[in-house]
Amino acid sequence: MDGVGTTTKEAHVSVTLTIDEVADLSRRALIACNTSETNAASVARSVAAAEADGIHSHGLARLPTYCEHARCGKIDGQAKPSAERMRPGALLVDARDGFAHPAIDLGLDHLPGLARETGIAAMAVTNSYNCGVVGYHLERIADRGLVALGFVNAPASIAPWGGKDPVFGTNPLACAVPRQGRAALVIDQSSSVVAKSEVVVHKQRGEPLPDGWALDAAGNPTTDPDAALAGGSMVPSGGYKGANQALIVELFAAVLARATLSIDAASFATNDGGPPRTGQFFIAVDPDAFGGPQFAESLDRLCAAITQQDGARLPGDGRLAARARTAEAGVTIPAALHEKILGYTED
Amino acid sequence: MDGVGTTTKEAHVSVTLTIDEVADLSRRALIACNTSETNAASVARSVAAAEADGIHSHGLARLPTYCEHARCGKIDGQAKPSAERMRPGALLVDARDGFAHPAIDLGLDHLPGLARETGIAAMAVTNSYNCGVVGYHLERIADRGLVALGFVNAPASIAPWGGKDPVFGTNPLACAVPRQGRAALVIDQSSSVVAKSEVVVHKQRGEPLPDGWALDAAGNPTTDPDAALAGGSMVPSGGYKGANQALIVELFAAVLARATLSIDAASFATNDGGPPRTGQFFIAVDPDAFGGPQFAESLDRLCAAITQQDGARLPGDGRLAARARTAEAGVTIPAALHEKILGYTED
Repeated sequence: MDGVGTTTKEAHVSVTLTIDEVADLSRRALIACNTSETNAASVARSVAAAEADGIHSHGLARLPTYCEHARCGKIDGQAKPSAERMRPGALLVDARDGFAHPAIDLGLDHLPGLARETGIAAMAVTNSYNCGVVGYHLERIADRGLVALGFVNAPASIAPWGGKDPVFGTNPLACAVPRQGRAALVIDQSSSVVAKSEVVVHKQRGEPLPDGWALDAAGNPTTDPDAALAGGSMVPSGGYKGANQALIVELFAAVLARATLSIDAASFATNDGGPPRTGQFFIAVDPDAFGGPQFAESLDRLCAAITQQDGARLPGDGRLAARARTAEAGVTIPAALHEKILGYTED
Repeated sequence: MDGVGTTTKEAHVSVTLTIDEVADLSRRALIACNTSETNAASVARSVAAAEADGIHSHGLARLPTYCEHARCGKIDGQAKPSAERMRPGALLVDARDGFAHPAIDLGLDHLPGLARETGIAAMAVTNSYNCGVVGYHLERIADRGLVALGFVNAPASIAPWGGKDPVFGTNPLACAVPRQGRAALVIDQSSSVVAKSEVVVHKQRGEPLPDGWALDAAGNPTTDPDAALAGGSMVPSGGYKGANQALIVELFAAVLARATLSIDAASFATNDGGPPRTGQFFIAVDPDAFGGPQFAESLDRLCAAITQQDGARLPGDGRLAARARTAEAGVTIPAALHEKILGYTED
């Protein structure tokens, strides 16, 4: 099934896969790296969804790291997450040092029902790991007719304003809102000027960073990806306001979720340091409990005020355009990456 | 009681008041402008708290506008807000075209109890008005031992990214967290580079704006306060990410709260256009339902990682320092402002 088009010469440079093939390849690679069927399928769905939406940094490019972490035991691929309803609107999910995705899946089985009942509900995920694209999880909440907020922490790479030592992860804040007859509106943005994965991409390509992305270990601006990654930090978006957003996210995703603080979390990139045990915090709100019947109309009017302006577009529109495109054209990845992933399936 | 120190010559330039005198003066001015005792006391407490914290733009400098709006009927100073528990964790408060503060007070009588019961609860305030400093309200939630998030909309002054027509208010997002043996940690920041009140201050002083604060009606950068205020817009913090934060806030404070969208809201500044009917949305989370016993320890460790760095400080530390200072030294305001406010008390 894999390697559609590998008979042409161009295919030796790149390989085009259908979204189903991306999911199947991801699943098989993870299973071969000591991950359970259920957990592998959960992570594979998110990898395929990221590729479908054109978010390659969280797609197949990330899969080798997932495989390595499951294989070396940094992550327990066999972990069975547990969920406990602490209060009528409060769910605590324990990822048990496994992948974030099956823990979030478990929570999402329950969260919408809780939110319908209480009007607003939240789930905290503790002892967790990199959950990939936050918007992917939130969109599933919005697809159940609920408004969602998401807070996710990660190993420290943003310094507090005025300081130079990283305390916060790039800590994304995300929001998803259901729309009538359309895909959910999804906003998903890190607290830094750009996501850290962009720095990694520049390092891999041997390219300097644009100004304003990163700082070195002394807190000075740098365009050197190595200086940024080796003891340096990411520049917060909007200066002190981005650092404060990262703090808000940290309060929810780590402090409230009884997860490991960004400052104490082991790397998402290397095999060292044991399970990161970071956290996620998702809030789901039933619009029927607040906005009532005018919710959809008000939302449409707000969105129209944006889209009717030349040059303006709704957040996520690029993602949805990619989704339509890849459904037809599939996903093209470097042949070397494809080979590398196939290598994991043969372990 | 008012006008302590008006016997000296300097006092003709400025007047120093105690915090209690600020509250009393505010209360009397509002009552003289057709505001009920209860509502006047509620607004007056927030004006005094803003002055105590050194946030003069939301203190006595804002009071004449409140008085004008109550006097001309743009705001119903006699309004009696109502609250309805829509679901176990969902409270809908109707400010009934009156001041925001008594409506929020009413909601805050109930919200903490709901959050204790359900783990997380929210209150939406509809048909509301300028609520002053968002952090003031959130701090009261944190003082009850709960983590709070606040979303507040305002008449449109931020354009969507890529567009030039304002769609969002400067829409602050705020968070407050209880700390053991200390004042709550409060983060309160607008979605724009600076709050719009800073532009108004520059206009009053006849000073140009710093670069990067505002855009004119054509969407071009401007340092002219008049160009910014007359059909122009505020620059979002961090570019598109600030505009998206304003969108998230709008979704909660207006769309979910069945309040008027920023794009449709009458001005908070002039007497025209009738009640703004904007909204607030506050979320309260019981840390005992999620973080449990390690919540306070984790929070202290996070805060220490910030404060131990040279040059870094916690958000709100400047505000708390002002609070300690004004408790001793009182609040000094221009004598002309004091005279103006005294004028309202004699209506």
